Amino acid sequence: MDWMTELRNMLGEHRVTDNLTTREQHSKDESYHPPHLPDVVVFPESRDEVIQVMKFADRHQIPVTPFGVGSSLEGHVIPSKGGISLDLQQMNRILEIRPEDFQVRVQPGVTRTQLNQQLKKYGLFYPVDPGADATIGGMVATNASGTTSVRYGVTRDQVLELEVVLADGRVLQTGSGAAKSSSGYHLPGLFVGSEGTLGVFTEIRLKVCGIPESILSARAVFPGIRPAVRAAQSILSAGIPVARLELVDSRAIQQVNHYNHAEYPEQPTLFLEFHGNPAGLKQDADFAGQLAENEGCEDFHFETNSLARAQLWEARHHLAYSFVHGTPGKQQMVTDVCVPLSALAASLEYARQLIDASHLDGAVFGHIGDGNFHALLMIDPTDEADVQAANQIHHQLVEHALAEGGTCTGEHGVGSGKIAYQRKEHGPAYDVMREIKQLLDPKAILNPGKMFDEK
Amino acid sequence: MDWMTELRNMLGEHRVTDNLTTREQHSKDESYHPPHLPDVVVFPESRDEVIQVMKFADRHQIPVTPFGVGSSLEGHVIPSKGGISLDLQQMNRILEIRPEDFQVRVQPGVTRTQLNQQLKKYGLFYPVDPGADATIGGMVATNASGTTSVRYGVTRDQVLELEVVLADGRVLQTGSGAAKSSSGYHLPGLFVGSEGTLGVFTEIRLKVCGIPESILSARAVFPGIRPAVRAAQSILSAGIPVARLELVDSRAIQQVNHYNHAEYPEQPTLFLEFHGNPAGLKQDADFAGQLAENEGCEDFHFETNSLARAQLWEARHHLAYSFVHGTPGKQQMVTDVCVPLSALAASLEYARQLIDASHLDGAVFGHIGDGNFHALLMIDPTDEADVQAANQIHHQLVEHALAEGGTCTGEHGVGSGKIAYQRKEHGPAYDVMREIKQLLDPKAILNPGKMFDEK
Ligand SMILES: Cc1cc2nc3c(=O)[nH]c(=O)nc-3n(C[C@H](O)[C@H](O)[C@H](O)COP(=O)(O)OP(=O)(O)OC[C@H]3O[C@@H](n4cnc5c(N)ncnc54)[C@H](O)[C@@H]3O)c2cc1C
Ligand SMILES: Cc1cc2nc3c(=O)[nH]c(=O)nc-3n(C[C@H](O)[C@H](O)[C@H](O)COP(=O)(O)OP(=O)(O)OC[C@H]3O[C@@H](n4cnc5c(N)ncnc54)[C@H](O)[C@@H]3O)c2cc1C
Repeated sequence: MDWMTELRNMLGEHRVTDNLTTREQHSKDESYHPPHLPDVVVFPESRDEVIQVMKFADRHQIPVTPFGVGSSLEGHVIPSKGGISLDLQQMNRILEIRPEDFQVRVQPGVTRTQLNQQLKKYGLFYPVDPGADATIGGMVATNASGTTSVRYGVTRDQVLELEVVLADGRVLQTGSGAAKSSSGYHLPGLFVGSEGTLGVFTEIRLKVCGIPESILSARAVFPGIRPAVRAAQSILSAGIPVARLELVDSRAIQQVNHYNHAEYPEQPTLFLEFHGNPAGLKQDADFAGQLAENEGCEDFHFETNSLARAQLWEARHHLAYSFVHGTPGKQQMVTDVCVPLSALAASLEYARQLIDASHLDGAVFGHIGDGNFHALLMIDPTDEADVQAANQIHHQLVEHALAEGGTCTGEHGVGSGKIAYQRKEHGPAYDVMREIKQLLDPKAILNPGKMFDEK
Repeated sequence: MDWMTELRNMLGEHRVTDNLTTREQHSKDESYHPPHLPDVVVFPESRDEVIQVMKFADRHQIPVTPFGVGSSLEGHVIPSKGGISLDLQQMNRILEIRPEDFQVRVQPGVTRTQLNQQLKKYGLFYPVDPGADATIGGMVATNASGTTSVRYGVTRDQVLELEVVLADGRVLQTGSGAAKSSSGYHLPGLFVGSEGTLGVFTEIRLKVCGIPESILSARAVFPGIRPAVRAAQSILSAGIPVARLELVDSRAIQQVNHYNHAEYPEQPTLFLEFHGNPAGLKQDADFAGQLAENEGCEDFHFETNSLARAQLWEARHHLAYSFVHGTPGKQQMVTDVCVPLSALAASLEYARQLIDASHLDGAVFGHIGDGNFHALLMIDPTDEADVQAANQIHHQLVEHALAEGGTCTGEHGVGSGKIAYQRKEHGPAYDVMREIKQLLDPKAILNPGKMFDEK
């Protein structure tokens, strides 16, 4: 009996498929990384089924690659050694909402919009917001973050407790329902960001927040990147608890204008959001506006009404869309460095220069309150020259970020795309990471080929 | 040549002492745990000396217990197997203050008041504030937190990068200067809270915050613990970003009155602090006051002037002092559970009942915005009945907290005092913690006898 038949007998026909279309869907992510087919896609519906799969895979030494919605950008979900793609989307129940405790317990396949829809009824929201409607499991596995992290932190900051099925089928419950703890080694923080290489998350307890009484959005237009960054820095230095602080460069605004027939000033623009009570917000926004003007801001505009707020942020929201859909035949390649704030202005300008000096089209934008920015490059993945130019820009940005004491990936993760920089970024700590990987997955069946080079 | 002579020859006379007074100082912490002498106390002045010590200890299999200022409360620094007490207080330089980046780099022996004194000049502060003037190294090793954690997070949230000397003398640099990262396993989070059992921290890069424009303190008196907790919960639910949220029970206020000849209402009292801009604070405090009144608050009083604020918080600040100095011949034994907020009121009442039912004197208070509270019990550590009663209360509180999904220690850590609860709290995850310990310290020389039971 071959192993696929054994798997089918174990879980039932409908949980195990080698249908080509399904396998193809699980062979790629949203990036330029070359696809690779899994042998089979498995859809577990419970922790016990995940345990069964892992014990089976352990016995047969079959690679297992967990899969959320596949929105990651560095080849994370590509089953580069074949085997099982373990799709967790059937495990999508919100198990518990505890408003008094500001926490929820969910299965990994729950998506963030699904969660927020339910939380809304309780006046709560889950603050981490990557651009895609990712699963909570995927977000935990990549330590996702986004526009609100400057105020609310990254995914790791929200994870109270994890249920993890290890490579050999052992189950851990790690963390607790307490808001903080100094009991034992902090394993939840180790599993967060482990990209499916240390275990499969089957339950996640998260912190959630009260929806703020009032929200104010602002847009500030600047004559250049440098004054925009200086303004951002002044706002942070003043201790104004800004909830979002995004920068979009002029090329991006241009593309939004072009694609949406809009007429935003084609200049570097800051997008801001403030959460709090009405009186405080007004004072925060006035102060922020003043600080922005000190740095040469030419137009500072704010709104509190929710529709007007959405319009005000439109150029930021439509950015990726305008490029991806406005450049037929091309795909996005997105860099993701994060640098100390003092190195940010120069890094952003350097990125802009690198794009301008290449034959590629692209924009620079980012979560600059955290020093995290992206160069979005439009490439034809089958065109050698495009790929080479994009890789070259990517490489130079990472080298620059590391030289400034930053990181090669602020939020997207390592996958296969950032493996080449791990040794340089982490030095001997990379050896310790590998030792931990070998400790928890001695047969190297969990998402092999990711995070670590073959040595 | 004996090993102590070898150590002296290596580091120089003045760095290595077996003087009895010094050894006695390093044989105990601030708790009731029985002392044990180290064979020798070593005072390294650089990372290289720490490396030398660890390589030496590795070669000779000599236990090494790192030591900050010894303010921990669970036997952490007691060298229960003798060997070397590694006192890091000579490594007390602030290496770098980078205001634009909101970060500092310090040696481990820097204390938090030393750091805050320097930061003040830049309009910055380090937000984590355990009751004692601990070292940053000790705070990182215990994942310390305190009154401000409800707003600013715990120590783990502030640590950007660590330099760690491992048991065999290898040096890791882990983390980066970026505000966030998804690159590799998050080793800084694993070392934070490792209580000297995984490595010695020789450099620490921390996030710091801008001093808020304005601060407002408030005190709210309630007819009982339950309404006080309900008020705290309403304030959090309303999304008011309270910076401190402390509860003190009536027995504690009584003791403060008695010891300081003060006249505070001897009722459960909330102490609050708000950070922000003046308009927002006023609105936040008014709203908080209203929510408190809805729950039966009998007196809600606030101040913005710094002297008046200090006075207003006096009863909270003098609490431990009033007991320790007002109860001659007794020592404090402090419990430290943390529970989900919905279980808090009942847990606090349970703690009060347990004390009342015993022959011991004590108070209940805590960082209730996080669900973390302490029973402070006054005992004569040489009196068997006292110790037994305190242990019994401690045991019952921990069992209760674990049953509610909480943790046996919210901030003090495991040391030797909480080892007995690790298996129950962590289950199979405790095995993984031990495996990680064995991986990084195979000869078990780093702070042996802490965190793990001998199995
Ligand atoms: C348009 C766009 C915008 C984006 N913006 C952002 C952004 O702002 N910030 C950001 O952080 N990311 C962003 N991303 C990247 C992506 O959305 C995140 O990485 C997200 O966290 C991936 O979630 P997913 O459910 O798609 O996971 P997948 O892509 O399916 O999986 C990601 C990784 O997690 C592992 N995994 C998934 N589920 C589990 C589980 N249950 N247990 C263990 N491992 C698991 C997988 O093996 C894989 O290694 C963006 C992507 C796109 C396409
Ligand atoms: C009155 C009082 C109030 C307190 N209030 C609080 C509170 O509110 N919140 C709170 O969290 N704690 C509190 N504590 C406990 C204590 O202050 C903290 O645990 C503090 O973090 C200990 O710091 P320390 O410098 O005294 O470390 P030590 O007690 O010297 O050491 C603590 C642990 O850290 C290890 N260690 C020290 N330095 C290093 C290093 N460089 N590398 C590796 N390991 C190291 C030691 O081996 C030991 O295991 C209080 C204590 C007292 C006495």
